[in-house]
Amino acid sequence: MINRRGLLIILSSPSGAGKSTLSRRVLEDDPDVTFSVSATTRAPRPGEVDGREYYFKSREAFQELVANDGMLEHAEVFGNFYGSPRAPVEAAIDAGKDVLFDVDWQGGQQIRGSALKDAVVSIFILPPSIAALESRLMSRGQDSADVVASRMAQSRSEISHWAEYDYVLVNDDLDRAENELRSILIAERLRRDRNPGLVPFVQSLNEEFEERQS
Amino acid sequence: MINRRGLLIILSSPSGAGKSTLSRRVLEDDPDVTFSVSATTRAPRPGEVDGREYYFKSREAFQELVANDGMLEHAEVFGNFYGSPRAPVEAAIDAGKDVLFDVDWQGGQQIRGSALKDAVVSIFILPPSIAALESRLMSRGQDSADVVASRMAQSRSEISHWAEYDYVLVNDDLDRAENELRSILIAERLRRDRNPGLVPFVQSLNEEFEERQS
Repeated sequence: MINRRGLLIILSSPSGAGKSTLSRRVLEDDPDVTFSVSATTRAPRPGEVDGREYYFKSREAFQELVANDGMLEHAEVFGNFYGSPRAPVEAAIDAGKDVLFDVDWQGGQQIRGSALKDAVVSIFILPPSIAALESRLMSRGQDSADVVASRMAQSRSEISHWAEYDYVLVNDDLDRAENELRSILIAERLRRDRNPGLVPFVQSLNEEFEERQS
Repeated sequence: MINRRGLLIILSSPSGAGKSTLSRRVLEDDPDVTFSVSATTRAPRPGEVDGREYYFKSREAFQELVANDGMLEHAEVFGNFYGSPRAPVEAAIDAGKDVLFDVDWQGGQQIRGSALKDAVVSIFILPPSIAALESRLMSRGQDSADVVASRMAQSRSEISHWAEYDYVLVNDDLDRAENELRSILIAERLRRDRNPGLVPFVQSLNEEFEERQS
């Protein structure tokens, strides 16, 4: 009813803290939230559709976007570039839709430093304990002990950036954490400064006052 | 689990926008929220208990509190003083409890300017229309047309201060507004800077990392 500007929701956490499950639940149930599709220079794999899994770009096209401030964040991983194109995010938030970013602390820092920083809400998810984190990583059952050990080292580095985020959740109960995440979205959407539509709405109330008196 | 500092929740709205009903629902169901009991210099009425309806004070005691910065806000109404004593609020928020203030824009301004301003969350409730506001005031059935007219003038003045608040709700559906109010409380409690207990908690996670490696 009241015209609002959408949010850039940055969700970061160490691997195994439940971030992917929480993202999925919110994206499935909340029609006002979309996922930020990344751009990449790596080749599409069988079944991947341009604009769905990724926007597939040549290195030249990717670099040009970066140079023209067209990426909210980007990074090179094993020789390929990955990044979040700004144009689709800007279109979404102008239409009052929120965009969810599943990024690490480096991506989070870049987005918070971007031209859209006023619309950013950043949330960090902590595990209740390192034992819980490790047991979730092990229970996936697909990874070798070496991979788990490397993930744990990465987790410690990721956790060291918790204090850069607006909100911090401790995920000791998935349903509770989901409810907390949804509450943050509901609340942030109600912030006065995110609702330009309040100005004309209050104006219409004032006009109604005038009409009553005349 | 995580030690947090309580909130000062300022709830303002024109008369008839549903503020009292919303306050009551939150106070009844949420054990972490208490109501700020006002101090007054007016005489107790039959059945009123000191510290429950009001803290009853002499004019001298009241003035001394004001002079010693012991009131978060105060005002004179028809020759009597009313105000919100600071000490019980400070004790509550230090114990991790939130305190709800049902005050007008003038009280809101004073609390936001007080020593406890960092803990303040301010919420303004708007009616969906002036016609709805008036019909709610009329349906109380106890007030004369003159009283309703004077409330409406007061409402217009109150509404003119909507833009001083952090959050703005439009109460066109009481259950939805209640859910929005609760979501704001859940979210604000999760803000990193309101949770000093996160520092020792993350430290304990780091100690767990250390123990795993040794």
